[in-house]
Amino acid sequence: MKIIFASAHDTDSEPWIKPLQALVPTAEFQNWDEHGPTIGAQLAVVWNPPADIFLRESKLEAIFNLGAGVDALFRLPGLKDDTPIVRLEDAGMAVQMAEYAAYALLRASRQFDAYEALQNTQFWTPQPDIDRRKWPVGVMGMGVMGARVAQTLASFNYPVAGWSRSGNDLPGIAQFVGRHQLSAFLGRTRVLINTLPLTDETRGILSRQNLLELQPHAHIVNVGRGEHLIEEDLLALLDSGHIQGATLDVFRQEPLPQDHPFWRHPRITLTPHVAAASLREESIEQVAEKINRYLRGEPLTGVVARSKGY
Amino acid sequence: MKIIFASAHDTDSEPWIKPLQALVPTAEFQNWDEHGPTIGAQLAVVWNPPADIFLRESKLEAIFNLGAGVDALFRLPGLKDDTPIVRLEDAGMAVQMAEYAAYALLRASRQFDAYEALQNTQFWTPQPDIDRRKWPVGVMGMGVMGARVAQTLASFNYPVAGWSRSGNDLPGIAQFVGRHQLSAFLGRTRVLINTLPLTDETRGILSRQNLLELQPHAHIVNVGRGEHLIEEDLLALLDSGHIQGATLDVFRQEPLPQDHPFWRHPRITLTPHVAAASLREESIEQVAEKINRYLRGEPLTGVVARSKGY
Repeated sequence: MKIIFASAHDTDSEPWIKPLQALVPTAEFQNWDEHGPTIGAQLAVVWNPPADIFLRESKLEAIFNLGAGVDALFRLPGLKDDTPIVRLEDAGMAVQMAEYAAYALLRASRQFDAYEALQNTQFWTPQPDIDRRKWPVGVMGMGVMGARVAQTLASFNYPVAGWSRSGNDLPGIAQFVGRHQLSAFLGRTRVLINTLPLTDETRGILSRQNLLELQPHAHIVNVGRGEHLIEEDLLALLDSGHIQGATLDVFRQEPLPQDHPFWRHPRITLTPHVAAASLREESIEQVAEKINRYLRGEPLTGVVARSKGY
Repeated sequence: MKIIFASAHDTDSEPWIKPLQALVPTAEFQNWDEHGPTIGAQLAVVWNPPADIFLRESKLEAIFNLGAGVDALFRLPGLKDDTPIVRLEDAGMAVQMAEYAAYALLRASRQFDAYEALQNTQFWTPQPDIDRRKWPVGVMGMGVMGARVAQTLASFNYPVAGWSRSGNDLPGIAQFVGRHQLSAFLGRTRVLINTLPLTDETRGILSRQNLLELQPHAHIVNVGRGEHLIEEDLLALLDSGHIQGATLDVFRQEPLPQDHPFWRHPRITLTPHVAAASLREESIEQVAEKINRYLRGEPLTGVVARSKGY
């Protein structure tokens, strides 16, 4: 059984292949180099792999993705419709998403940004106390990431709702389900946190039309994908004042071009796609466990539903 | 039964007295004005009361404090040693403390401060991923506030320990107890969060000697009392680099004087004593419940142990 490791992220494959090999001793791991020979492997562990991998490695029985989002894989030529793709489910990412969302929410709701500005004035100026009812949070996507985000923010006593395709029964989180309930979900939300997977159905979902349905002085936190957001719509709604601020980790073009207006916008906080890193140790452990289950013929979790795209 | 309400914080006593009266219909509430007559009341509900209240109201059987910290009451003349003082135990404050501590920790550990500076440069520069083992958190005080802070930060997977006089059995929180274990507690701590009550034993506990025992590049979060911190020691250790940053909500003198060096220190984030406000609704409900229990002869929680001072 030959398994290739293919990543354009990390030029040094050794720290990945060595522990994978130790955890899956029954297979033979090999680094896949786009300038090297075709291997004819049965399995692939990929993380942003070279674009021609599926054209050349045509015998793959399954693909293990070192990340939760698989939208980029679907854009690669040669990917067969019936090759199972297994994605990471958490691997330390959900807690990081929860941290990121909590920071963004608290900075706005607890007015830490305002207090920073006030510190510069050297005036002691307490602001009115927080009223959590004025900060209803809505989380888009109720997978492992979204659920963790929602539960974390609910633990701070904010009213939290989730919106997703099929719902998730979480105590204390109001569930809105499907396109039909999107409008009701947006209408009760002030802080919108996007953790959706990118699919044809969700692309551009953060549009002017949808964002206008949010409560006034809304905040947007995007930790999903850049293509979820219509960037010019966000800028227009920030200008109009309907949206008060945005915290963005993902962008249509990454790295974000230097002349992009987001960089210098006073009400946009941006980070360079770091909200939730796949942690090497956790990722290796999880993917090795999945490969071992696959090799033993056992059922897997995290298998992408090709019809849904995530 | 006459109950006085006395607060120098809020000049309008009506929003306090009216709901208290409704919730405790068997007593008669009255506002206490330092320029008005002595009432001879049996009970007092106080929140930063005028300084001569205990000299003049000498028949008080019990005092209900609209806050968790009672150190200021002990400084007022005329307070008898055997008059029970009942303090607020949570009333919405613990969750606010947890928010404040979480924000301060995440800003440092997740490098949001660094990313803000990098945004100004317009360069896409991801920083190394977080390793939670490098951010051990230590919470001083394991009362309602400290316990909530510790549990919240542990839910983000940081290693969290508590230090207190008598300990608190919380799952996942390592407990250090008493003066004897203070040094061990400090030695494993990088982010120190102070939620202690102010007593003769804890005054000045954030001293050069103790802070030097923290791990290098330490962060200090003070949501206890200003008198816990030796301010010049903090400045010296920030200068030496041993302490990387401080987030301070309380100060020896409040409002903080305009010429105080904390205002303009680049590595101090300060807020004007707003980390945890007593929320009016919750405070009134809790204090009314306590008064009703007192009037019915039932046991109370939140009674200050006068020997310990909190």
